[in-house]
Amino acid sequence: MKALEEKILKEGTVLPGNILKVGSFLNHQLDVDFIMEMGKEIARLFADSKVTKILTIETSGIAIAMGAAVWMHIPVVFAKKHKSNNVNGEVYSTVVHSYTHGTDYTVVVSREFLNSSDKVLIIDDFLANGKALNGLIDIVAQSGAELVGTSCAIEKGFQGGGDKLREKGIRVESLAVIDSMDDTSITFRKI
Amino acid sequence: MKALEEKILKEGTVLPGNILKVGSFLNHQLDVDFIMEMGKEIARLFADSKVTKILTIETSGIAIAMGAAVWMHIPVVFAKKHKSNNVNGEVYSTVVHSYTHGTDYTVVVSREFLNSSDKVLIIDDFLANGKALNGLIDIVAQSGAELVGTSCAIEKGFQGGGDKLREKGIRVESLAVIDSMDDTSITFRKI
Repeated sequence: MKALEEKILKEGTVLPGNILKVGSFLNHQLDVDFIMEMGKEIARLFADSKVTKILTIETSGIAIAMGAAVWMHIPVVFAKKHKSNNVNGEVYSTVVHSYTHGTDYTVVVSREFLNSSDKVLIIDDFLANGKALNGLIDIVAQSGAELVGTSCAIEKGFQGGGDKLREKGIRVESLAVIDSMDDTSITFRKI
Repeated sequence: MKALEEKILKEGTVLPGNILKVGSFLNHQLDVDFIMEMGKEIARLFADSKVTKILTIETSGIAIAMGAAVWMHIPVVFAKKHKSNNVNGEVYSTVVHSYTHGTDYTVVVSREFLNSSDKVLIIDDFLANGKALNGLIDIVAQSGAELVGTSCAIEKGFQGGGDKLREKGIRVESLAVIDSMDDTSITFRKI
């Protein structure tokens, strides 16, 4: 999505440790008109997939998931980060490793909001090594629902998570894929 | 908002400790079409207020804030819960007491996203004792921005936080105000 690449070049900041700051429009301040444009593009990409539910993860995934859901007229379910790994039988749960924080955390989704009749589209703001996305894919599998595909606003292609999912046959639609970045330049993959 | 009262009666569950569970549409699963209707009502209420920015708090406030912002075509800024009270000078910060968890937490907003030229509408999903809202009001004051008012989906009127704000002259628009609730019935205030 050309407009997203231009927005990243204009407003993004690359920090040490492969961090891309896009707090001005995606994960602290939300440029809602722009998020709606991104959501419209995701809705277009999955228009024929008969998606019944969007699954995302708190916090930063909620806005972009909403942006797509408004056009698709379907509910969003967001996975919650759980304080402990003591979860009860009323939830699907999985453990996700965070490279950023160097820790594991448990995410949960109430069983009442996902089941085997659902066709699920997973949406998140970033796709880097794919750990969060793999956690959500695991939750979809536990529910018996069909995974239609995944979509992220920004994929850090050089971290490989997206391509690993594609090699497994999972549909991954990223609105912008960064091939390389440093404090002087950002290079996008042609998609 | 009559439709919200009906939705609460149909889908809400009252649990011990004055907890109202509305996870089916507001804070775990998001009924996006319905959230857009609530957002439209908030946009209508503040149509003449020249709001430049919506301020909310992660996580549950983001969806309803987005719902209003889509109609108002303005950005959302969400305050982030901070792991420690060691914050740097680049953020506005305040401490909020959580009755639910019995702890204090620090919330922060980057200074670059709120300033004295802004007219701010604060939105959240719930208003109970008003602690979170007071924290956001403090952040608006620190920024020098003008507080236009606050709006919440569901106010627990019997906990008094909303009326305390109204007594201070702050505009509080709640889409549904619960006067009393137990496991057999929920009574709404006429608004």
